[in-house]
Amino acid sequence: MAEKYDFEDLRALFINCTLKKSPETSSTQILANISMNIMKNQGVKVDLIRAVDHDIAFGVQPDMRQHGWESDEWPEIFENKVKPADILVLCGPIWLGDNSSIMKKVIERLYANSAVLNNEGQYAYYGRVGGCIITGNEDGIKHCAMNVLYSLQHLGYVIPPQADAGWIGEAGPGPSYGDKLDNGSRAGIDNDFTNRNTTFMAWNLMHMAKMLKSNGGIPAHGNQLEKWQSGERFGFEKPHR
Amino acid sequence: MAEKYDFEDLRALFINCTLKKSPETSSTQILANISMNIMKNQGVKVDLIRAVDHDIAFGVQPDMRQHGWESDEWPEIFENKVKPADILVLCGPIWLGDNSSIMKKVIERLYANSAVLNNEGQYAYYGRVGGCIITGNEDGIKHCAMNVLYSLQHLGYVIPPQADAGWIGEAGPGPSYGDKLDNGSRAGIDNDFTNRNTTFMAWNLMHMAKMLKSNGGIPAHGNQLEKWQSGERFGFEKPHR
Amino acid sequence: MAEKYDFEDLRALFINCTLKKSPETSSTQILANISMNIMKNQGVKVDLIRAVDHDIAFGVQPDMRQHGWESDEWPEIFENKVKPADILVLCGPIWLGDNSSIMKKVIERLYANSAVLNNEGQYAYYGRVGGCIITGNEDGIKHCAMNVLYSLQHLGYVIPPQADAGWIGEAGPGPSYGDKLDNGSRAGIDNDFTNRNTTFMAWNLMHMAKMLKSNGGIPAHGNQLEKWQSGERFGFEKPHR
Amino acid sequence: MAEKYDFEDLRALFINCTLKKSPETSSTQILANISMNIMKNQGVKVDLIRAVDHDIAFGVQPDMRQHGWESDEWPEIFENKVKPADILVLCGPIWLGDNSSIMKKVIERLYANSAVLNNEGQYAYYGRVGGCIITGNEDGIKHCAMNVLYSLQHLGYVIPPQADAGWIGEAGPGPSYGDKLDNGSRAGIDNDFTNRNTTFMAWNLMHMAKMLKSNGGIPAHGNQLEKWQSGERFGFEKPHR
Repeated sequence: MAEKYDFEDLRALFINCTLKKSPETSSTQILANISMNIMKNQGVKVDLIRAVDHDIAFGVQPDMRQHGWESDEWPEIFENKVKPADILVLCGPIWLGDNSSIMKKVIERLYANSAVLNNEGQYAYYGRVGGCIITGNEDGIKHCAMNVLYSLQHLGYVIPPQADAGWIGEAGPGPSYGDKLDNGSRAGIDNDFTNRNTTFMAWNLMHMAKMLKSNGGIPAHGNQLEKWQSGERFGFEKPHR
Repeated sequence: MAEKYDFEDLRALFINCTLKKSPETSSTQILANISMNIMKNQGVKVDLIRAVDHDIAFGVQPDMRQHGWESDEWPEIFENKVKPADILVLCGPIWLGDNSSIMKKVIERLYANSAVLNNEGQYAYYGRVGGCIITGNEDGIKHCAMNVLYSLQHLGYVIPPQADAGWIGEAGPGPSYGDKLDNGSRAGIDNDFTNRNTTFMAWNLMHMAKMLKSNGGIPAHGNQLEKWQSGERFGFEKPHR
Repeated sequence: MAEKYDFEDLRALFINCTLKKSPETSSTQILANISMNIMKNQGVKVDLIRAVDHDIAFGVQPDMRQHGWESDEWPEIFENKVKPADILVLCGPIWLGDNSSIMKKVIERLYANSAVLNNEGQYAYYGRVGGCIITGNEDGIKHCAMNVLYSLQHLGYVIPPQADAGWIGEAGPGPSYGDKLDNGSRAGIDNDFTNRNTTFMAWNLMHMAKMLKSNGGIPAHGNQLEKWQSGERFGFEKPHR
Repeated sequence: MAEKYDFEDLRALFINCTLKKSPETSSTQILANISMNIMKNQGVKVDLIRAVDHDIAFGVQPDMRQHGWESDEWPEIFENKVKPADILVLCGPIWLGDNSSIMKKVIERLYANSAVLNNEGQYAYYGRVGGCIITGNEDGIKHCAMNVLYSLQHLGYVIPPQADAGWIGEAGPGPSYGDKLDNGSRAGIDNDFTNRNTTFMAWNLMHMAKMLKSNGGIPAHGNQLEKWQSGERFGFEKPHR
């Protein structure tokens, strides 16, 4: 029974870091839709951004318009989409075995906001959960996911079990996820491992987000920047030898 | 007030993946002790293993004695130390910018046990939390931590915010953490960033482990291998286009 | 005696992948200048591009103006700077332990040109050498260099010994390379390891580029895409068992 | 015509870093054999070591018997196999998306010998070339190769173009390279991309090794540790601003 879970107060944000501008088809989006739909059907309010469609400046400051850039849509995205989201899922393609430049830009801008603290004096990203979806013709889901999930936990997100999902084909050039194949089938969409991970990820993100919300976030002790800076040590003791 | 947190029912396991056998001094251990002591002072039962002191076989099976190895201490370590632990912290040095071979061996053996399921049909590592401590003369905390934390979440551990801590010196050869320097001080031990992360990590691991324990682990829906294998789909729908 | 080396027919291109637009100071540039100057003093013609100053489109096609982008300076950069260069050095900062988004964009665009072949039917990047320079406040030279050098060798560049150089400070926030410190010195500029690597890299790049040029590039046998595609196997035999 | 290439004075060493002891079948070996055979047929003397069959100690010293280990076969392997080899190919499996523990142990021991200098005062690994072969059920060739090739160039090896080859299957558990499939075929052995890379790698390693040998290694100027340590600067100048 899924009915016993009440996820209606949760909000999720999926950021698609494809290099392709709308309305080009993004393979990554096709896979991300599976997780998005599972969440929507559970009552989660789900937002989606395709980052390349937005005029997001390069840099590591919250608002790059104050640092020589004429325009920068990030501050608005951060305020209206990132901050309200209990769940953040970064989605992107693999190029030469690594995350896309757009993925790196989004992570740089999330990092730019990392000085913000919540009312408890914790990093403002605390109390949220993060995951990722990665697709490519071949090779690199884990390499890309490693970097994305590491970045999210570094910022303050909780990473639930098996918070990454993805699809790649056999070594070498080949179809992208969802591409029609000669035999009439579509690449990847029957891959049991991919389907299972995409599903498990969606549920684990919802479960952990809900648990954190119900428990008032991560308890505020031992992890407050301001208190540390003002001298509180939370039991820390320097090594004697 | 830390008094309001009751962590006495928690168990933690620190596995030190140094290449140095006892009784040689391990720099990594000096840093790990800080987190271990914080946990002990909160009532957590803390175990420590220096993996290189044990006769752990290479391989990806639960018991390598059934696969051509004469001896293998891993099954006992897994049963008596890993399974009872709510908190697992993998600790290790950096060599040539990457995790030690002992760290990789420990991760391979944790992976070897990943087919085990709990009573709910989830992976048996579910409901636990993981972190890591990395030290080196120079360069590589994040690279090593990325891999360790990724591996842990893949197995089923929850990764709390800022679950990695470490120390490295400036680029180039230099002292290890805790080494006595010419000026009488000791390398790294006054590094505010390292001390803060080591403390925050300890607390975030305890908070999340406690929260998971109090809530009965990750709710068992949408993440059960056996149910998936028997056809349950938890709302998963194949992409139409 | 350096006099015996005649590097006057060599061309080098340094691409600085800082996130900062001109005329902001780039720490990475300060370090890159050392290698550039060594090369210039040996008669190498050295070009420099700060990628963020150019309107380079996102994507993995040679000219993104044919794929929905209004403008794209890459095709001109590729034709006038990348193709003539015997030596390519990708330079960039570290953010959250990884390469910058601009670095990834430049690598994506280099990759976009990888279908081009030379007169021998080899990939057009063959016969050239590549290196990298990475700077950050802390942690990540090797992680970033690993990815950059891998990408370059994958495209066809030869990687000479010790083809990466960089500077980072001790763990935690801190000054960037070249920043003035309270004691009047400047961060990193007296780091012997950094200075040596930056020097060795410059020389190894020149030596290998010259050797390749004098020997007519990589001999064209066993590595020609077109011949492989037309059935030539160069001694390859399928495994029997 | 391959006849014009005289590779008879070249020696190659392949180190297989599988976790499986002989006589268990190693998938990685099946793929490595292709490159080994191409080299042998060109007159290269090719050695092979399966590292897990040897009693190689953990550590970062040349001979661990002087550091508390009862036995250590590495010093003999280094002297008789690594030092004579113009070409070194590290081969290994992927576990949880990363290199095997045996691969890391071999790299640690190669690193342990990195203080050795040649007659010119360069690092003793100079003048040699390196490559790698990686196989797995799924995902990780580039991630593993990135680390292996980086380590080799850091030690002093030259990395020729496209010096990595490998095979992985589609995302998810599946057969290993060479495994017999239900339809009678064998996993991976008809993969054109894998076969081509394995062939190109073999040839590029031979070409570069031969070129280096014919040219007397990397010219000894600008890259000699002892000269740098005694004050020679090879044109290096500290940044003025």
